[in-house]
Amino acid sequence: MALIVQKFGGTSMADPDRIRESARRVKRELDRGNQVVVAVSAMKGETDRLLNLGMAINPRAGADCPREMDMLASTGEQVSIALMAIALNSMGFDSISLTGRQVGVYTDGAFMKAKITSITADRVKKELAEGKVIVVAGFQGMDPNDDVTTMGRGASDLTAVAISAALKADRCDIYTDVDGVYAADPRIVPQAKKLPVISYEEMLEMASAGAKVLHTRAVELAAKYNVKVKVLSSFDELPEDITVDLPGTIVTSEPDSIREDVLVSSIQRTTNEAKVTLVDVADRPGTAAKIFQLLADHSVVVDMIVQNVGAGGEADLSFTVERPDLVRIKKIESQIKDLVGAQDVLYDDKISKISAIGVGMRTHAGVAARMFEALGKRGINILMISTSEIKISVVIGEEYTELAVRTLCDEFHLTESVK
Amino acid sequence: MALIVQKFGGTSMADPDRIRESARRVKRELDRGNQVVVAVSAMKGETDRLLNLGMAINPRAGADCPREMDMLASTGEQVSIALMAIALNSMGFDSISLTGRQVGVYTDGAFMKAKITSITADRVKKELAEGKVIVVAGFQGMDPNDDVTTMGRGASDLTAVAISAALKADRCDIYTDVDGVYAADPRIVPQAKKLPVISYEEMLEMASAGAKVLHTRAVELAAKYNVKVKVLSSFDELPEDITVDLPGTIVTSEPDSIREDVLVSSIQRTTNEAKVTLVDVADRPGTAAKIFQLLADHSVVVDMIVQNVGAGGEADLSFTVERPDLVRIKKIESQIKDLVGAQDVLYDDKISKISAIGVGMRTHAGVAARMFEALGKRGINILMISTSEIKISVVIGEEYTELAVRTLCDEFHLTESVK
Repeated sequence: MALIVQKFGGTSMADPDRIRESARRVKRELDRGNQVVVAVSAMKGETDRLLNLGMAINPRAGADCPREMDMLASTGEQVSIALMAIALNSMGFDSISLTGRQVGVYTDGAFMKAKITSITADRVKKELAEGKVIVVAGFQGMDPNDDVTTMGRGASDLTAVAISAALKADRCDIYTDVDGVYAADPRIVPQAKKLPVISYEEMLEMASAGAKVLHTRAVELAAKYNVKVKVLSSFDELPEDITVDLPGTIVTSEPDSIREDVLVSSIQRTTNEAKVTLVDVADRPGTAAKIFQLLADHSVVVDMIVQNVGAGGEADLSFTVERPDLVRIKKIESQIKDLVGAQDVLYDDKISKISAIGVGMRTHAGVAARMFEALGKRGINILMISTSEIKISVVIGEEYTELAVRTLCDEFHLTESVK
Repeated sequence: MALIVQKFGGTSMADPDRIRESARRVKRELDRGNQVVVAVSAMKGETDRLLNLGMAINPRAGADCPREMDMLASTGEQVSIALMAIALNSMGFDSISLTGRQVGVYTDGAFMKAKITSITADRVKKELAEGKVIVVAGFQGMDPNDDVTTMGRGASDLTAVAISAALKADRCDIYTDVDGVYAADPRIVPQAKKLPVISYEEMLEMASAGAKVLHTRAVELAAKYNVKVKVLSSFDELPEDITVDLPGTIVTSEPDSIREDVLVSSIQRTTNEAKVTLVDVADRPGTAAKIFQLLADHSVVVDMIVQNVGAGGEADLSFTVERPDLVRIKKIESQIKDLVGAQDVLYDDKISKISAIGVGMRTHAGVAARMFEALGKRGINILMISTSEIKISVVIGEEYTELAVRTLCDEFHLTESVK
């Protein structure tokens, strides 16, 4: 008998029919003889509805009353756990819902972005021992003052993984509206391969490179506590045979022997960034530090940074930021210029970032060269380059986004051959 | 400085505008230099919406999963407390919302109809001492298993009175959509007097006689702990002068000297009852007991009972029940007949019950006579009579309801003279 944590997101909890459909997936795991703890998100759209109610009373409620916004938003998951427990009970399973507090999800007191400090799960263990199916509210916890906290949008994944770690669950199944993790966005590359297994590191790099399957903090936590995560669909038809494993993608630390020759496992893209170039910055020690401190003071998050020093000791400094942050940068443009003696500040918001990710890069040289060459052959100009141990990212003109993703999927054999 | 508990019902919390309007009533009391604890209901329609979600998954959810229905329904008040606290904060008051559990509202474990066993209110006292305005969730509490309970529909009044008792509040203001308690329903008697003050007993008898202003259990609790309750409107225009007391009705135990000559303070009516008559019941000891035990076994609640013994030792036994219960009685009609040897069972669902209520009856004889005579003069036939220490109820034909109420308001001077 294995202990499985199953997490259902907002689309899987959208209405009574979908909740029943999700409950059938819990039933399947129970019928297979396993123990199940279910973690759920608020019904689709509910968290927005609740936060909008608060902001209808005070548009600055998030900043002025974060404690109250958490009191408000946490009801979304409380509704979901009750409905899921009702669905499971009506299928004949003795099921009980528990709030974050009842589970013993303790967090710090940073409302709306709380971090889990510990999980006792005493009551979960007690009720499990009594043969019950436990339904746990995602997203929420309790701070040291006995107040309700929430952990930021999409944090129900985090709850599921954290509870899996606390209970030493055999697997944490994340049910979503896709049936796994793909090598590239199927909307761009319809033949993109589904990945049967990827590593935590790849998943993390994919998330930061634009993939929206799993919550980043959840993957980090899974890696830290070695929780085996599986991404699978709550929309696919269930096979009649309950012994069949459902298709999906396993995220794990275990090296995958069948993938030894895979250099690149995924191509991702983001299109929400803009490039800022400071022209002719004086190349003095500390210049970059000054600029990025100033930007941080104005809450601008910088992604890639590239500096080229010319022959005359003058440098062009480029960096990427999220597009909405351009407004704030333009407001302090003259301050930036004065600070580092830049001649000019150039903006380009027609860019995209393309990333190739794969643990295979660690042991194989030449991936970058193949990537640049493949793009070059298509006439795609590379504006910036940034690399990590298992990721190579390039900034290109936005109009080349789809072409670049398809080109690199071909180059690294990430598409299924058409049947 | 007085401590005032203010309770706002669903219509006073219906939407962001109404919540702000209710918050202005809290502000007014704070501006008068008082401390305020606010108790709120769910937004109008929200409890139904939530319970319907549960029943969409399992129509028998109320019976099958009362614990989960409470987990579900209690979110309605949690949303309201957060919104009210946001509104008060945006008006410049340091306000904090607290769930039933955080207030320390302990109940028994009877889900959906829990009874309060104790209220600690430790956190309320602590936060009040720090100068905060406390917003408390009505309707909900926590049972000995650390589970959320609710106390039955309309029980936010009960929470407000219970917290008033626990905090020894100077007054418990119940804000509603009417501006006080009237001698009779203004829809029937537009000139009905508003009662400036009534006793707990009168309020209780009025509630059981059809008045729908205050929750019965709340009035009982107020009487037990001598909580001074005021019923007032959250819809009336607020006077500019904050020293002016708002109009309303005080419910209290204190004898009211100005009302010494008032015999009858209120005329109420119910029209949801039906009369059942068992014809020619054998007049043997224990007959009535058998019938009413049988009815109780079938969850039929009996209101008035009248028995007349004829010359031959045969009796007609009549009683009133709520109309929907007639179905259940008709199902066991032959059982009832056999049990007591009745010749026939007659049903009349075209009746109404008219009650005259007043503490003055205790010391003054002749009220019943005046009541019957006034009705008789109008040609209204009395089908049944029942009396208590401060109430006289009669059953009449339903078509005479309005005429009877108006006649008795005239007889006992319960209308304002037209200006």
